[in-house]
Amino acid sequence: MSYPSALPLFRVRFDHGFLAERARLVRETVIPGQWEALNDRIPGAERSGCVHNLQVAAGEKAGEFHGLFWQDSDLAKWIEAASYRLATHPDPALDTELDRLIATLAKAQREDGYLNTYFQLVEPQNRWANLRDCHELYVAGHLIEAGVAHFHATGKRTLLAVVSKLADLVARTFGTGPGQIPGYCGHEEIELALVKLARATGEQRYLALADYFITQRGQSPNYFETEALRRGEKDKLPWHMHHDGLATLQAARPVAELKEPVGHAVRMMYLLAAMLDLAQDKGDPALREHGRRLWQAIVERHLYVTGGVGSEPYGEKFCEPFDLPPDRAYAETCAAIGVVLCARRMLEHELDGSHADVMERALYNNVLSGLALDGRTYFYVNPLEVVPAVAKRRFECHLVKTQRVPWFGCACCPPNVARLFASLGAYAYAQVADGLAVHLYAGGDVSFRVGPTPVKLRVTTDYPWKERVELSVEPETSAEFTLHLRVPGWCRAPRLELNGRPSDLETVRGYARLRRLWKQGDKVVLELPMPVERVRADARVSAASGQVALQRGPLVYCAEQVDNGAQLSALSLPRASQLNARFVPDLLAGCFVIEGEACRTEPGEKLYATAAPRVTPARFRAVPYALWANRGEGEMRVWLRES
Amino acid sequence: MSYPSALPLFRVRFDHGFLAERARLVRETVIPGQWEALNDRIPGAERSGCVHNLQVAAGEKAGEFHGLFWQDSDLAKWIEAASYRLATHPDPALDTELDRLIATLAKAQREDGYLNTYFQLVEPQNRWANLRDCHELYVAGHLIEAGVAHFHATGKRTLLAVVSKLADLVARTFGTGPGQIPGYCGHEEIELALVKLARATGEQRYLALADYFITQRGQSPNYFETEALRRGEKDKLPWHMHHDGLATLQAARPVAELKEPVGHAVRMMYLLAAMLDLAQDKGDPALREHGRRLWQAIVERHLYVTGGVGSEPYGEKFCEPFDLPPDRAYAETCAAIGVVLCARRMLEHELDGSHADVMERALYNNVLSGLALDGRTYFYVNPLEVVPAVAKRRFECHLVKTQRVPWFGCACCPPNVARLFASLGAYAYAQVADGLAVHLYAGGDVSFRVGPTPVKLRVTTDYPWKERVELSVEPETSAEFTLHLRVPGWCRAPRLELNGRPSDLETVRGYARLRRLWKQGDKVVLELPMPVERVRADARVSAASGQVALQRGPLVYCAEQVDNGAQLSALSLPRASQLNARFVPDLLAGCFVIEGEACRTEPGEKLYATAAPRVTPARFRAVPYALWANRGEGEMRVWLRES
Repeated sequence: MSYPSALPLFRVRFDHGFLAERARLVRETVIPGQWEALNDRIPGAERSGCVHNLQVAAGEKAGEFHGLFWQDSDLAKWIEAASYRLATHPDPALDTELDRLIATLAKAQREDGYLNTYFQLVEPQNRWANLRDCHELYVAGHLIEAGVAHFHATGKRTLLAVVSKLADLVARTFGTGPGQIPGYCGHEEIELALVKLARATGEQRYLALADYFITQRGQSPNYFETEALRRGEKDKLPWHMHHDGLATLQAARPVAELKEPVGHAVRMMYLLAAMLDLAQDKGDPALREHGRRLWQAIVERHLYVTGGVGSEPYGEKFCEPFDLPPDRAYAETCAAIGVVLCARRMLEHELDGSHADVMERALYNNVLSGLALDGRTYFYVNPLEVVPAVAKRRFECHLVKTQRVPWFGCACCPPNVARLFASLGAYAYAQVADGLAVHLYAGGDVSFRVGPTPVKLRVTTDYPWKERVELSVEPETSAEFTLHLRVPGWCRAPRLELNGRPSDLETVRGYARLRRLWKQGDKVVLELPMPVERVRADARVSAASGQVALQRGPLVYCAEQVDNGAQLSALSLPRASQLNARFVPDLLAGCFVIEGEACRTEPGEKLYATAAPRVTPARFRAVPYALWANRGEGEMRVWLRES
Repeated sequence: MSYPSALPLFRVRFDHGFLAERARLVRETVIPGQWEALNDRIPGAERSGCVHNLQVAAGEKAGEFHGLFWQDSDLAKWIEAASYRLATHPDPALDTELDRLIATLAKAQREDGYLNTYFQLVEPQNRWANLRDCHELYVAGHLIEAGVAHFHATGKRTLLAVVSKLADLVARTFGTGPGQIPGYCGHEEIELALVKLARATGEQRYLALADYFITQRGQSPNYFETEALRRGEKDKLPWHMHHDGLATLQAARPVAELKEPVGHAVRMMYLLAAMLDLAQDKGDPALREHGRRLWQAIVERHLYVTGGVGSEPYGEKFCEPFDLPPDRAYAETCAAIGVVLCARRMLEHELDGSHADVMERALYNNVLSGLALDGRTYFYVNPLEVVPAVAKRRFECHLVKTQRVPWFGCACCPPNVARLFASLGAYAYAQVADGLAVHLYAGGDVSFRVGPTPVKLRVTTDYPWKERVELSVEPETSAEFTLHLRVPGWCRAPRLELNGRPSDLETVRGYARLRRLWKQGDKVVLELPMPVERVRADARVSAASGQVALQRGPLVYCAEQVDNGAQLSALSLPRASQLNARFVPDLLAGCFVIEGEACRTEPGEKLYATAAPRVTPARFRAVPYALWANRGEGEMRVWLRES
């Protein structure tokens, strides 16, 4: 796996509860369904063309390329997800399918290592000619990630060989040496992929190449400017670079000079992930500190309460600090996945629960919102407030879908969700020097070693619905080690039991650190009371002024029209109103709702009036944001006025 | 004047107080300053090219056309404004300047009557070829309005002859007869201009032509579609027609089928103004009722509290009912002028104070915001909330200027403000069957006739700062008539005195109707108490939920950063907080501010927290919205949270 502290995926099993259910959905429905999409076999879905393009490039069929410059990346991410699935759930048919696909990839690859069906089929003369816009190295990065995942999952080097050959071509082509292109990709991705490749192969030159891409970015003379002049473009930037120019691509100045997150949110997160990786593998404290500061800036000034980032839809970008409007949240599923990637990397640098809190916030809210309950449709954009008639009409909302869709012309998000959930084990657990860290609570088990001793930890829980987490420790022989149990930052009154007896719970940086000689049958119970909380945003978040978001455990809630009627902005929650959580078994596959008394401001006779409006009591119900839009189209709202 | 009930402009004089001051500014600074702009003599301002283009077209100089298809319309509106100025303040130098300019216009006009410098100099072969986008008839409309204004002001038929010849060409060219073009303009304007021309010349064929343009609009087969096909354009619409398509131009279906205002706000208002005119001159009750319903829809569902319309910046359009976000208010100065034009026409149909209330709201707030206190810079877009850093960065705010500017590449608004303020007399008074109606209160006098008897009404007031309006009635000989005095809808407790004695005040549809035998020296005093009011929007206005706007008299107030510090969204007004108005002589040329105790929510340590934030008391000051951005750049906010 990509995280040095992660256990091999097959050592982690999720077998019951919320995350296990999502992982199963991804395994059984999402990954097979996406294979259908990539093969253009879903009626009514936007065409992918991915498999078709590859087969044409490999000479297996005739036809024309379909899609965008970066179309191959969807397929690469799917291979990565399918590989993870193979790691946890061996499946000969899928194994064979992947072998066949990899053989086609190998056949499509040029002699020199080049592999990109768009440029092979459409513009062979323009290879590497427009790094700013065409995502060639981004696609290569995703292929490399797929190759590493397939290698880890199967032990086979078939795809690893293909992507190593591609990476070698990239290494020969790019750099500041004679005859090399002193460029880098407009969309970061290959940087973190190269770190993975270095880790998987032990080849330090891939790490050096990642280092080059990060260090060279934004240096003067600016490569993107040089390249644009060479293409005969002067003062002409693509639309998405409005206002921020090259900072849209984190390339207006050297990366080391970045103080706030800038530009396209997914790119920024992927860049930061690579910086954190590189800081670790190079042992570079300055880079680590720089990465940490950027991370803190994101978490302290740019994060939606749902864990999303990117509040400027035009260009899918970071905006001003604290500028987090709910209706115009872009909060792309991929960007929230980027938050998860960076949070997990921060946990590699320091076992601090605040990073896991952010990871959990993004995962349980913005990322999960990207996927329908039935695993067949997706959101790309995840706003925190939707009024369908307005969202469909306003230009600044024109990328918002009010209902999830089966596929996208630019389909980066669906396979990204798939690869994240198929590799969830790497996010839940970390093998640390003195034992095991548990970052996320999910029903299942994990096998690890303490020195020579195999240990199994069994987790029984209904988290995040219920507060009780039971952990059974089963070392083959008694062994001394530390169990680092995360105590979520949202939990005010956690309780601990050890072998049936209440135990003092002390946390260090968000983790209860239980060191002892663990014996077969030791049992830890963590109680994480999760009352309904009213969350307030910092006063500088103009758009949430005077409003609260409801949260229970890690789940942020939202009001939907189907439960509360239309005109959700007329609802308010009195400060004194009691809000209760209740399990409703037949709702949204079984979920806890939040209910209570609210107020509804009634429409008046005139558009403007001095008289106080009529306010009537109204029953109120909120459901987890992750589960919104699973019951037809309607209004949705996370921030609710407090009255 | 364009309104049948309006008195000739020279009969109305404004000589003291708020509106008189603005009228003087327009007369002495704005109109001369705009002449400099139209001649490209303002350093640092965007180039106009208007006079240059005309001189080139007339063969008076060599050179190339500069500007947009509709560049001539800026000059036409300025001629209209300058003519009104001449009507109220004779000025031989200006008279001569206008004569010279009109001579050049006549020289530039083609033999057949055509006059449009863009199409004469740049695309002579494409005359009338793109009515949808090129505003040829819109420009003609403004020229016609100028010709009518110049005729009324000076009695000279020089420009009237030019524009009649142009109108005759239009009449020959357009229609459903053989060889005619069955089209109409993408930007309405010529319709209302033709009604003015018909009224000025008595030629009913101009009225018939206006009728044709309105009736033909949106009929099937759609002319804009036919025309686009002829140009070889298929399925390609300009960017501003996003989402609404031909409804952007009120041309998706016949005008008679419109139920809500649609599309580009200025066009919609100009169309409605023409419909109301036509209903009156044709005596068409169905058209009148249709116009009234559209007006009510605008007033009840689409009007900003500042009197502006157009809440979708992308395309400068009407959006969904009640969708009135303050930061994205387009609320173009011209659109608010369109509100004034329609309100005044509604008052022609029925003497109902609610129409004057809307006229006053638009005039005193959105329209005046368009002009700086010094009369030298302008706003085009008039949002109700600005955070400069955010407004400059967000795409949906990219047309917002955070400071007024000297001129615009597309400079429709500045001369529109000029022509409105130069003809203010037509909005303040109306001669009605049984006497005089006073719609707006402004210091000065008006001369009218009751039968054969000349009457002078002298108005002494500091309105809208002060509540007292004194009216001295001076008939040459005693005469019986009705004085219809508007009692503003915002006034809860008006009082009336007649010759020093309190008098019962009964209003009928918003007007106190005082009928008596008026004698020289009769004096009416109207007291219009104007406490500070908290105005609330209907609950369906999501963006104003839980917030209030402050209003005193007709003036809507706003908080500015210069008075209250940054982060205005953190301010709230406790329900119980006393708000007082106070005159500050050295502020903004002397103005009443609103002051009181507010609360400020302090920034916290974390972006999201469950603890209630720290709230501190804060002194609060608001200034009239019309006067914002006259003290440097900073945040501004109309809607303030109530706590």
